[in-house]
Amino acid sequence: MARRRKERVRITRVDHPATAAATRSTFDELIVEEPMTIQLDGTVVATTMRTPGHDFELAAGFCFAEGLLGGASVTGVRYCADGSAVDTEFNVVTVETGGRAPEPSPRLGTVSSSCGWCGSEQLDDMCARLEPLPVGEPIAYDVLASVSTADSSRLFAATGAVHSAAAFDHTGTLRVVREDVGRHNAVDKVVGSMVLGLSGSLPATGLGLFVSGRASVEMVQKAWAAGFSTLLAVSAPTALAVEAARRGGLVLVGFVRDDGFNVYSPARPS
Amino acid sequence: MARRRKERVRITRVDHPATAAATRSTFDELIVEEPMTIQLDGTVVATTMRTPGHDFELAAGFCFAEGLLGGASVTGVRYCADGSAVDTEFNVVTVETGGRAPEPSPRLGTVSSSCGWCGSEQLDDMCARLEPLPVGEPIAYDVLASVSTADSSRLFAATGAVHSAAAFDHTGTLRVVREDVGRHNAVDKVVGSMVLGLSGSLPATGLGLFVSGRASVEMVQKAWAAGFSTLLAVSAPTALAVEAARRGGLVLVGFVRDDGFNVYSPARPS
Repeated sequence: MARRRKERVRITRVDHPATAAATRSTFDELIVEEPMTIQLDGTVVATTMRTPGHDFELAAGFCFAEGLLGGASVTGVRYCADGSAVDTEFNVVTVETGGRAPEPSPRLGTVSSSCGWCGSEQLDDMCARLEPLPVGEPIAYDVLASVSTADSSRLFAATGAVHSAAAFDHTGTLRVVREDVGRHNAVDKVVGSMVLGLSGSLPATGLGLFVSGRASVEMVQKAWAAGFSTLLAVSAPTALAVEAARRGGLVLVGFVRDDGFNVYSPARPS
Repeated sequence: MARRRKERVRITRVDHPATAAATRSTFDELIVEEPMTIQLDGTVVATTMRTPGHDFELAAGFCFAEGLLGGASVTGVRYCADGSAVDTEFNVVTVETGGRAPEPSPRLGTVSSSCGWCGSEQLDDMCARLEPLPVGEPIAYDVLASVSTADSSRLFAATGAVHSAAAFDHTGTLRVVREDVGRHNAVDKVVGSMVLGLSGSLPATGLGLFVSGRASVEMVQKAWAAGFSTLLAVSAPTALAVEAARRGGLVLVGFVRDDGFNVYSPARPS
């Protein structure tokens, strides 16, 4: 079964937000991310968010490159397809060595369901754990267009190799900026500064979270958990990130460029 | 203690590699990545590669954003500083809630050492597990300058949101190209296609591995494990990635642009 690798989504395009914002409804192609669980000789070794396609190569390559095969040959790779779970059976891949690979130790974030879970189950789980965000006054388009961490990103200026994240208010003022080699870490540092009361407090109601890269579903989850009203990403979101943002009531803006940006959530801006 | 967040490294700069390559020795500032283990009330919940700095915020923000606090307040955050391990005591951070957070389940990639490990121990571990790469004829600079996955990156063209990885030979011909929302996944797919004998076989001696983003130490580890001779990254490597590549004998080239690139490993090109 060929699985979708991109998804067409209706969005709102905002042109020239800094001056006379013009909005129109259009479509954007988004990359698909879905969880995939990798088993080695029946033991779960990892769950990764991946774009479907070449799943057997991903599973075999992961086991090899992480040193899990210990010199054993791969004798087979297959989906967990027991016929009971049509939607998710392609989200678990088992690499077989006939037991010749060393027994793997149990791993993080493993999922007990025998046939894995799919992105929409992941969203159901998120919705069960997190309250929908309160509806508030959205941050104005011209303000969103003005947000930048360029002046504060000293490590990026020096190395060109870090991500930044920032909390900003409805005037576009940056409350806290953090940089890290990992983009999730940069977001965790911003959230953590608010958890510890160093830069305001949580929930971050009415505030926006800026990220210098893409918006994955994990970024949406972190923004939602912290109570941010808006997630502003310089690059593209994934399809699952958009679905999560819409379900949580998080404003999701992406592909921020000089001449405009895309509003991915809400589906129909007020 | 303020810990280093960037590191100055001597590199070889190659200008105009496509025509008359000119090389010179210079310096580059690289971002530091070091492992940090996060504990919640004494139980390890994650190990992440991070840039040192704002470590307490990272630990508290991770626990909060991942929903591990369960509504409990953070009563304290501290380094694992028992005085016994000067170098590594800043690589474990404990978030305290006085036991009011739900008991966390054990997690992936956890490290049993009481005070964590540092990047150089991680490299020692890598060196113990992987043989140094054989010394061979390096791929010519003009060939390295010509490698691009632009023509094969259909998902990137459509979505602007994926990473690509590719195996290429000494003529610059691409043997296999894979795309994924995760950059590690793209590399695992390339390696996996070789593990499964779909695109040549392993070890990838004499071949180069192209990655569309940055080169972290994990990318170096994967390239080294698969036996690639060269890792070619469009963006910057981390300091630890350079150290790993030098120890493994992997040619590491980064910041590939129209007018040239940087050679980070070997330290002194032949």
